[in-house]
Amino acid sequence: MTQQISDLQADPALAPIVQIVGEKGVIVGDDQTPLLTEWRQRWHGSAVMIVAPQNRDELCAIVKHCAAKKIAITPQGGNTGLVGGQIPYGHEILISTKRMRTIESVSVIDNTMTVEAGVTLQEAQSAALEADRFFPLSIGSEGSCQIGGAISTNAGGVNVLRYGNMRDLVLGLEAVLPNGEIWNGLHSLRKNNTGYDLKHLFIGGEGTLGIVTRAVLKLFARPHQTETVFIGAASADAIIALLPRLQGGSGGLVSSFELIDEMCINLVLRHIPNTRLPLAQTYPFYGLIEFSAGHGTHLKPLVETLLAGAIDQGLTSDVAVASNETQRDDFWRLRHHVSQALNGEGVGARHDVSVPISAIPQFLQTAARAIQQVAPAARIAAFGHVGDGNIHYDIIPPEGASKTALDDQRPAIEAAVYDVIAQFGGSISAEHGIGTHKKEILAKHKDSVELAMMHAVKTAIDPHNIMNPGKMLVLPNQR
Amino acid sequence: MTQQISDLQADPALAPIVQIVGEKGVIVGDDQTPLLTEWRQRWHGSAVMIVAPQNRDELCAIVKHCAAKKIAITPQGGNTGLVGGQIPYGHEILISTKRMRTIESVSVIDNTMTVEAGVTLQEAQSAALEADRFFPLSIGSEGSCQIGGAISTNAGGVNVLRYGNMRDLVLGLEAVLPNGEIWNGLHSLRKNNTGYDLKHLFIGGEGTLGIVTRAVLKLFARPHQTETVFIGAASADAIIALLPRLQGGSGGLVSSFELIDEMCINLVLRHIPNTRLPLAQTYPFYGLIEFSAGHGTHLKPLVETLLAGAIDQGLTSDVAVASNETQRDDFWRLRHHVSQALNGEGVGARHDVSVPISAIPQFLQTAARAIQQVAPAARIAAFGHVGDGNIHYDIIPPEGASKTALDDQRPAIEAAVYDVIAQFGGSISAEHGIGTHKKEILAKHKDSVELAMMHAVKTAIDPHNIMNPGKMLVLPNQR
Repeated sequence: MTQQISDLQADPALAPIVQIVGEKGVIVGDDQTPLLTEWRQRWHGSAVMIVAPQNRDELCAIVKHCAAKKIAITPQGGNTGLVGGQIPYGHEILISTKRMRTIESVSVIDNTMTVEAGVTLQEAQSAALEADRFFPLSIGSEGSCQIGGAISTNAGGVNVLRYGNMRDLVLGLEAVLPNGEIWNGLHSLRKNNTGYDLKHLFIGGEGTLGIVTRAVLKLFARPHQTETVFIGAASADAIIALLPRLQGGSGGLVSSFELIDEMCINLVLRHIPNTRLPLAQTYPFYGLIEFSAGHGTHLKPLVETLLAGAIDQGLTSDVAVASNETQRDDFWRLRHHVSQALNGEGVGARHDVSVPISAIPQFLQTAARAIQQVAPAARIAAFGHVGDGNIHYDIIPPEGASKTALDDQRPAIEAAVYDVIAQFGGSISAEHGIGTHKKEILAKHKDSVELAMMHAVKTAIDPHNIMNPGKMLVLPNQR
Repeated sequence: MTQQISDLQADPALAPIVQIVGEKGVIVGDDQTPLLTEWRQRWHGSAVMIVAPQNRDELCAIVKHCAAKKIAITPQGGNTGLVGGQIPYGHEILISTKRMRTIESVSVIDNTMTVEAGVTLQEAQSAALEADRFFPLSIGSEGSCQIGGAISTNAGGVNVLRYGNMRDLVLGLEAVLPNGEIWNGLHSLRKNNTGYDLKHLFIGGEGTLGIVTRAVLKLFARPHQTETVFIGAASADAIIALLPRLQGGSGGLVSSFELIDEMCINLVLRHIPNTRLPLAQTYPFYGLIEFSAGHGTHLKPLVETLLAGAIDQGLTSDVAVASNETQRDDFWRLRHHVSQALNGEGVGARHDVSVPISAIPQFLQTAARAIQQVAPAARIAAFGHVGDGNIHYDIIPPEGASKTALDDQRPAIEAAVYDVIAQFGGSISAEHGIGTHKKEILAKHKDSVELAMMHAVKTAIDPHNIMNPGKMLVLPNQR
């Protein structure tokens, strides 16, 4: 049965919330569906009530009420998360930040921007560009993901190598705590050694300690020129060996360093229209590398010199440098459509993992042997931001098999991959987070001392487990 | 009476610690003095016992013993801290990391270095250079300060604008917790979204949550060229207005951006031998600006073009560009000797504060008016890393007065400055931390919600208040 405003007004526990936000702030009926459904249809949730406050004070009043009544809360941004953290189980009130969309200020001297949580990443990027500044976070969902969500999940993407994760891009934060109090860390100070830096608990905290309401983001000088390179190589070792040479030789001008294996490229060429390999022949591994710089750097000749050196050293023999924006887009099209191309074959198991950069070649070999044990006919597609040690490691059904052919083997495949990750001191979730999807895997793989510390912090800040319960942590007393 | 090993062996609570570290690991007699005395003679402490374990396992065993017996601990690195955080009050065991000095590895591919806590900053910098890499943290005490202390105090320095504080330079950490357990966050992953990022509690935590034993530090491409510029300007506004122009115009190649006021420069010229002003006349404000870049950037012409633009816009009329390494050293000599020069006059009150960069000119004006109220004849000396919003704001006695002339007014002066800092949303401790020196000031100025969160975190991790008690926080049940 579809929820109506009158139902909520009739409920003494919920009526005060309708009062706080007004009817415009309550989402009922069919409008609820998009907020309760994960965008790939992997999680379908339900909620006691869905509200979209129009500002921090309304949000704060809702949380205060929930705290008093011990009603659980699921915060939600753009609903683009990949691990289900934004989808309520049913006993929570869903609070959406989608109406909190004000870009409050952009300061060129401070090199900062102050925004409300519901501003989309793309809106933030655009506002920076309008001030001739650069906000570097860039991810596939940037058109709809929100800053609050990007902070709560510590989003990554293609510019991490040069500019860091979202964690590195936040100067100050404001959050509403589980008791409805406002934590005011909303400053634009670049140096502030006055006790524990609490913002780092909320960044990547997946909404389990509070709701981010506003943030001060760091801006950067706009890059004025870019060189984009596509290379083929005989081994992952050769690609990885290029990274320190190119970084060292350019004084740190590499901004993206992506690896794509042969399987990925072949499936992109098969499934995605208007794609072609920019090299004369195929290779087991490809690298997509981008350099960027300001005025005053003669970037093109520098890149050409560095690539000539790489060829001399036998690290690659085949290099294409984009000669215009269209070619650059063509190179990136190959990378950006990998996931879609793999979907065309059906993906048995996806893994967003990381290892130390130097361990990538050995990880790829060891993981392939492990997959061979549990799913001998499966195909492996590996790609990702290897300049950050981040690999998207996907296992797809054998050529010609049904898209669901590996579904029964998924648990065994995942267990095998995570065991190899543990061997290399890697992370079971490089950039997507834990949410609902990986909380049991986290509980299994995380060191018990660290888990105990995480539980202690959660209990200290949210003693009644009101904030996004059942996500990230499996608490002993979890509902 | 001077402590002897035999005294400790006779004490049933301390004898087991002698057992753990052996006689070589116990510091007694006159050797204790340098560890109990703050280097400027501002704090003199005492301790139940002083130990210097030779590795993590010894350190861990000591902490386990202390936890069982509820003996408090003061961790100490190079004893170069400026707020007394490293000096025990008397009831603690002092644990020095000075024997834990192994550089465990340097990885060029991972761009990382793994070191024990007792490695000095200079040793870490040198090891990076030997591998043709760059570790950018640079502070006055780098010859003797230790990595563990630099992490626990989130050290800053002259390269923060480009590379960040110590917080930004740590990839992974290992720490011994108050209960003697080891928290193993010692990874070199650049992406790892698996729960709360706990390392940020230890970074800048001033040893109140645990003792840092090892760290994985980020390395960078070595800058291959540097341009150093000394400018005079009519106002702080003009200096500050230069920052976005130079950053924007160079694509972010500014690595240091220091402001020094006329008072500082005059006193440096008076007290420090072999110094001279590199400009033709004097100005109310000076800027010391450094650019750095890798190969491929034509840095000198770029800097010259940018400076010509600044002159055209009336932001400065007098610019000196260092033409060789000796001139560069001469420019930096003016900046590095400011503190020493001020000591020559006697400093009534020092303040290590920060405000948003754009607020610096107004802060300087407002603070000067406030000082005028409480100490009308006092002289003001302002300098610092203003590219990070960090000002060292020192109040010195009137010309010709005794060095101690302002001592009685110090509390009133400090209160006035911190009130102005609060007005501008600034920080009462930009880079030196809280320790013993500022804990009451912190308790007064910090938002009560944030203080309550800090107390909750401290209690969650260190319920018996064993780790560096009485530093940073004034806990209700503090000894």
